[in-house]
Amino acid sequence: MALPELTAEGCASRRARLWASVPAECELAVIADPRHVAYFSNYAPSLFTFHANEALAILVLTRDRTALVVDNLVTCFADRAHVDEVVAPVWYEGKKSAPIRPALAIQRAIELIRGMGASSIGIEKDAVPSGLALALLEGSTRLRVHEIGPTIRRMRRRKDADEIAILRRSIELGEVAMRSLRAKARAGRTEIEVRRRIGEAVEEAAGEPVVLYGDFVSGPRCLERGGPPSDRTIERGDLFLLDCSVVVGGYRGDFANTVCVDAEPTKDQKALAQACMKTIDAMEGLLRPGASCRAIDAAMRAALPHASPSHGGHGLGLGHPEPPFIVPESDDTLEEGDVVACEPGQYVPGVGGMRFERNYLITAAGFETLSRHELGL
Amino acid sequence: MALPELTAEGCASRRARLWASVPAECELAVIADPRHVAYFSNYAPSLFTFHANEALAILVLTRDRTALVVDNLVTCFADRAHVDEVVAPVWYEGKKSAPIRPALAIQRAIELIRGMGASSIGIEKDAVPSGLALALLEGSTRLRVHEIGPTIRRMRRRKDADEIAILRRSIELGEVAMRSLRAKARAGRTEIEVRRRIGEAVEEAAGEPVVLYGDFVSGPRCLERGGPPSDRTIERGDLFLLDCSVVVGGYRGDFANTVCVDAEPTKDQKALAQACMKTIDAMEGLLRPGASCRAIDAAMRAALPHASPSHGGHGLGLGHPEPPFIVPESDDTLEEGDVVACEPGQYVPGVGGMRFERNYLITAAGFETLSRHELGL
Repeated sequence: MALPELTAEGCASRRARLWASVPAECELAVIADPRHVAYFSNYAPSLFTFHANEALAILVLTRDRTALVVDNLVTCFADRAHVDEVVAPVWYEGKKSAPIRPALAIQRAIELIRGMGASSIGIEKDAVPSGLALALLEGSTRLRVHEIGPTIRRMRRRKDADEIAILRRSIELGEVAMRSLRAKARAGRTEIEVRRRIGEAVEEAAGEPVVLYGDFVSGPRCLERGGPPSDRTIERGDLFLLDCSVVVGGYRGDFANTVCVDAEPTKDQKALAQACMKTIDAMEGLLRPGASCRAIDAAMRAALPHASPSHGGHGLGLGHPEPPFIVPESDDTLEEGDVVACEPGQYVPGVGGMRFERNYLITAAGFETLSRHELGL
Repeated sequence: MALPELTAEGCASRRARLWASVPAECELAVIADPRHVAYFSNYAPSLFTFHANEALAILVLTRDRTALVVDNLVTCFADRAHVDEVVAPVWYEGKKSAPIRPALAIQRAIELIRGMGASSIGIEKDAVPSGLALALLEGSTRLRVHEIGPTIRRMRRRKDADEIAILRRSIELGEVAMRSLRAKARAGRTEIEVRRRIGEAVEEAAGEPVVLYGDFVSGPRCLERGGPPSDRTIERGDLFLLDCSVVVGGYRGDFANTVCVDAEPTKDQKALAQACMKTIDAMEGLLRPGASCRAIDAAMRAALPHASPSHGGHGLGLGHPEPPFIVPESDDTLEEGDVVACEPGQYVPGVGGMRFERNYLITAAGFETLSRHELGL
């Protein structure tokens, strides 16, 4: 089954919202953060090919036309982009020595932009290469440049239907990891081995290679709250904390569970897990547009029996973490279209470290739980 | 076993060569291509963690001091960087809402650079974000900016000992893939399944997740020369063409073999493979510093019985392909320190598609074969 992609409608809608948000005098916009090129065009080359290594993609937009500047080696991915035009100069076709790859795309974008004669352009200053901006400014004394990066970041809060569809697939694959946890996390295996076996299950379900990352810790390492898998051998009765993400088209869910390996959890562990579950309930009771993220974090801290949990949660999408931040001094308020994680955890010497986490979509009516994995030791 | 990394000596030596190559008036250099930040500092965060998602790393160098600008969430990777100073402002620590991540690193780099009062700086124009260059130029009427990107690209041709060590590890892991090919490419399995099983063998050998990519094609798809694995079911007697790379610290080997699945190859297939082997011998006979890449490509075309092979080969390292290019109209000449692939292939309807490929280090005396996998159907 092919992984879902951003749709033509979704890309067009985001571009319309971009134009509604940038200064009215902007005639042209230039975007080069790979996440944002994908966000507005669905151009998202696979990591698992040589084609896009060292490639640069530049999106050049006017209010009525969008061009994607790449090169000939990535047209297989550019063909799926929802743009009016793909500008793909030949970088390499096995005949001549190839020039410097990103410089070629920059040069072609400069030519394209110069041909448009704009006097006011918006650029994503934290991603568009200096070479492009400097060349445009050198070539024109009247050019005004506006920063549009923060506008795009602000837009990303409200997820569109096509983004939610991709996030749902990422979450389904994360659920495969969670479902396999009990079978894979066995006494006698190392954490690295468990991670590899879980990764195999996820790749099998995905039908293609995907990036899986997260915390894979066991026993006393659970008190450290997380970390990459180590060569520690798991023992019977250890807790195993899995908090992971599967990246699909740049988007990622992020949720957690903790299990007791090959044994019944202790009474204290059960009580602690129970307290975490009640805390999740308390947090969920607050999830709705307009809710203060600071208050949700405070509700978590009030419901948990021990001090020093992790942060309460955070937004998810192309970023991880991204706004809104569910933390003690948060400035954020939940909005419709936010996708967020709530992740109460307790790390108690003598009992164990555990974290439980779900993902939610904030809706007009409150929230929808996106992650369906079973929580509990 | 931990994967090898670039060494302090290697990074210092590359920085010294950079300073010897940039214009004498340059007082400061700014680098932001993630490959080149790693090349000069060994800062190379893992893909398999959330820590570096949306992070930006900027290297700010003077002739006697190197600073790496990142943020607090990636200090686990920055601690391994061979630099004089890590500048890591707090982006997120679970207390406050986090600002826009790359913009924070840019702002901190601007402050650092302004404090140095340079009047002439070298920047990598195809990678350093516009926001950095524009802010510096706005703040100073006397600042001169030099492009240093092509200088860095030119330096990359000659691989250092620490780079070769990483490439050897990438190649060892690619050899694991090649060794597993006969056992994994079995009749009744899909190409996707074969890829997954080969990936499992590679990850087990690596001891951590790595990116494996390449061509995984069988039967008639071999005539197309390559492509990602499909859901085609392999049949007894099919050829299976594997041409793959394992990425280690950004570096990648790239070599190929073709096998006949669960059967003896036909007489014609054997003869074609034999011709490819002789062609590899002919190409190897030319590998030495000073050799014309155009001549090596021509030697390949002369030795093969059928027209239309792929390109003769290409350089390898942080790029794929990268200079030198072994192609009909190449401008390149082999140099000591080049790492190259030679990959004669034949794609003959009625017989089959096959490619065989080795990797080499060009040495003062000629060459060293880096890839040791067995070639043959």
